Amino acid sequence: MVGISPKKQYELITRGIEETIGGDALLKILEEHERNVKCYWGTAPTGRPHVGYLVPLTKLADFLRAGVTVKVLFADIHAFLDNMKAPIELVKHRAEYYRQILIAVMKAIGVPTDSLDFVLGSSYQLSEQYNFDVYRLSAFVTEHDAKKAGAEVVKQVANPLLSGLLYPGLQALDEQYLDVDFQFGGIDQRKIFMFAEQYLPKLGYSKRSHLMNAMVPGMNGSKMSSSDADSKIDFLDSAEDIAKKIKGAYCMPGEVDGNGVLAFIRAVLMPISRVRNEAVQMGETLDEEWVKPMVPSDAPDGTLFYISRPEKYGGSLYYDTYEQLERDFKEQQVHPSDLKKAVGDALSALLVPVQNMHEKDETFRKIKALAYPDDEPKEKKKKVAKVNPKFARYVLISDGGLAKTEEEAKENAEADGVSYKPKKKQGKPPAPPTEAVQNLDMNK
Amino acid sequence: MVGISPKKQYELITRGIEETIGGDALLKILEEHERNVKCYWGTAPTGRPHVGYLVPLTKLADFLRAGVTVKVLFADIHAFLDNMKAPIELVKHRAEYYRQILIAVMKAIGVPTDSLDFVLGSSYQLSEQYNFDVYRLSAFVTEHDAKKAGAEVVKQVANPLLSGLLYPGLQALDEQYLDVDFQFGGIDQRKIFMFAEQYLPKLGYSKRSHLMNAMVPGMNGSKMSSSDADSKIDFLDSAEDIAKKIKGAYCMPGEVDGNGVLAFIRAVLMPISRVRNEAVQMGETLDEEWVKPMVPSDAPDGTLFYISRPEKYGGSLYYDTYEQLERDFKEQQVHPSDLKKAVGDALSALLVPVQNMHEKDETFRKIKALAYPDDEPKEKKKKVAKVNPKFARYVLISDGGLAKTEEEAKENAEADGVSYKPKKKQGKPPAPPTEAVQNLDMNK
Repeated sequence: MVGISPKKQYELITRGIEETIGGDALLKILEEHERNVKCYWGTAPTGRPHVGYLVPLTKLADFLRAGVTVKVLFADIHAFLDNMKAPIELVKHRAEYYRQILIAVMKAIGVPTDSLDFVLGSSYQLSEQYNFDVYRLSAFVTEHDAKKAGAEVVKQVANPLLSGLLYPGLQALDEQYLDVDFQFGGIDQRKIFMFAEQYLPKLGYSKRSHLMNAMVPGMNGSKMSSSDADSKIDFLDSAEDIAKKIKGAYCMPGEVDGNGVLAFIRAVLMPISRVRNEAVQMGETLDEEWVKPMVPSDAPDGTLFYISRPEKYGGSLYYDTYEQLERDFKEQQVHPSDLKKAVGDALSALLVPVQNMHEKDETFRKIKALAYPDDEPKEKKKKVAKVNPKFARYVLISDGGLAKTEEEAKENAEADGVSYKPKKKQGKPPAPPTEAVQNLDMNK
Repeated sequence: MVGISPKKQYELITRGIEETIGGDALLKILEEHERNVKCYWGTAPTGRPHVGYLVPLTKLADFLRAGVTVKVLFADIHAFLDNMKAPIELVKHRAEYYRQILIAVMKAIGVPTDSLDFVLGSSYQLSEQYNFDVYRLSAFVTEHDAKKAGAEVVKQVANPLLSGLLYPGLQALDEQYLDVDFQFGGIDQRKIFMFAEQYLPKLGYSKRSHLMNAMVPGMNGSKMSSSDADSKIDFLDSAEDIAKKIKGAYCMPGEVDGNGVLAFIRAVLMPISRVRNEAVQMGETLDEEWVKPMVPSDAPDGTLFYISRPEKYGGSLYYDTYEQLERDFKEQQVHPSDLKKAVGDALSALLVPVQNMHEKDETFRKIKALAYPDDEPKEKKKKVAKVNPKFARYVLISDGGLAKTEEEAKENAEADGVSYKPKKKQGKPPAPPTEAVQNLDMNK
């Protein structure tokens, strides 16, 4: 970020992070080498990204504001292998959909996207050198270590697949091949990150730093998963759909542990407000087309979250720290339904520009249709019987023939010297006439 | 082979084979598709190939005689990974050494080598498509199946490496990428072969046939291994060395089970004689430069093995079947020392042309030196003291200077106006003169 010190950059990079390993190395790069740092965050482009993605994206916003070059890895090969029913071409469309919607979301959050890069795994994970390194690594890594590294990330099944043992090594090599200083991920990646720190140096590559986000409970009280269709809020959901889905979230009065609604405010909505406030403080003008306020303009300075409430219930609330909000909720000064409404409103405001893009940008809609053909509204196609072109003139247009009316069909048949049989109830084309049909000219 | 029927080809391909799986598919190719079949045999170019290699090579001779295209795969990547101390360049030199010596051995056996191809694993095992298939396979193969497949071939250790789990899949893919109809190997490969039959079709590739040789005990009674330096007979060993090593072989009077000497006659020497006899029967003239007789020219027709023995001990013996030899040995009609001598003589005769090549072919010697630098005779380098070029004219040539004699050294010093100090006992060059040396012209 122009005009902030290395120490300030480092604070911005690591704030709110649950665990940082190798932070000293990052600080050293910033202070001594006077260059910005590069990081990578990976995701497999499978189901449509939902608002659960806002948790890592909000942290990426800090990175971008701190001048970090952020590389988003779309692990297309992994995505393909996870579910080989989806052809690789579909996965590539999905990666493109991810790219476009993630850029839009980052713009909506209010950060510049010039240093936000996207890389397809297949662009290097099939190269000679990468694969030679995969083989080299496999001659160092024991089954035991590979299994341990993947324990929290790889699906644990009775008959585990080899791919699960390969993943930790591939993810380690990605750090080298993406040429980054640190990798960012959820704290569930910790064992994979430790594995990378252990094994990259054995291949002669440098050990990278690792920044880990806390796990955030989903709004249904569990980890928000893309396969959990009911609770999932899509980036393109309307304000009504968002309100409806959040209304169904698990959020008991006074209960703060495992409260996904509170967690979302803490991990997403407040940090986004903060990063916006900071930009304004730095004298920047946010792009009004992309950045929609989540807090009213007359709110007190430094407000990060706002709950609109009628005067008779105590009036609106303005929070500049999460701790205060949590205390109020715990003491039941804030009712779950007010909290949910406030989250829905803020989230809807945040996503308006993304939904506008969906409406206006035909290219985006096209890639969405290619990426998720099953999500497209189905046109009710009329069931049309297959008609032998020879006999089309004696069949109604509605049944796939050429005659506009039953009358016309009959006339055509008579004109051709063919005995006309009225349409059967089943809509079957008439049985082929017995004579004078062989050389029928369809164009006459 | 020109002029033999598909059925005869098939018999030649499968004779002496311990187990054939998918033989019907091979016969079908020969009979219905009227094309020759292609096979692959793989080896990792590590230590110098020894006469234990004659077991598979003898079978390759049958394949070549039957018109099979034989692809020898040098698994250079595997060799490198097995022992990462050897740099990959060294492994490539070793593969070239293997290539040259194997061609020579095949010529010495007496078969045409036009259809004998050599392929480096690295020529395709790092390609995009191959690696995509490795990933695809890893998403099908369970750890359990991979471990089971490698149980007899992969070194079983307490902390097994990932590479051991990858090998069976790589070997399966080789069949597809080498485009062969069958793979040939020892019966210890059976589980790997079964794995290939199971998994290639899952990737949409056809199942290959598999031909397996029986395991042959080494001459020391165990499996002949390249790491067993004492018993190992190198292709370049002299007749004396061969005789000496075979003399030390484990071969008890009348004992046929696990008898490596008898096994070698059965699996190598007799089949080679047979393939030579068959060629002569087909009217072919064997190349005298390359094919040295292992049986005297006045031996009865069809003799496959010959034991030279003085009349007083019963006279020479001529065998046209292994069974007869085994019976005689069991009944102690043949003494181990006579048997060993006969094997040594036959093997030495077989290998004479290979040793001739080593003597005459400078290119071969060069690649040998590059491939196995530690095997080269060490030249006793004279220890030469490092001489400061400035003072070289005052130091004897034998000590690394320029003066031929002590006299000359003294004269040079005087001519340059430098005080000459005779050589110290330690051979240290004289101490630098104190003056007039700074601008000494070495060329005057």
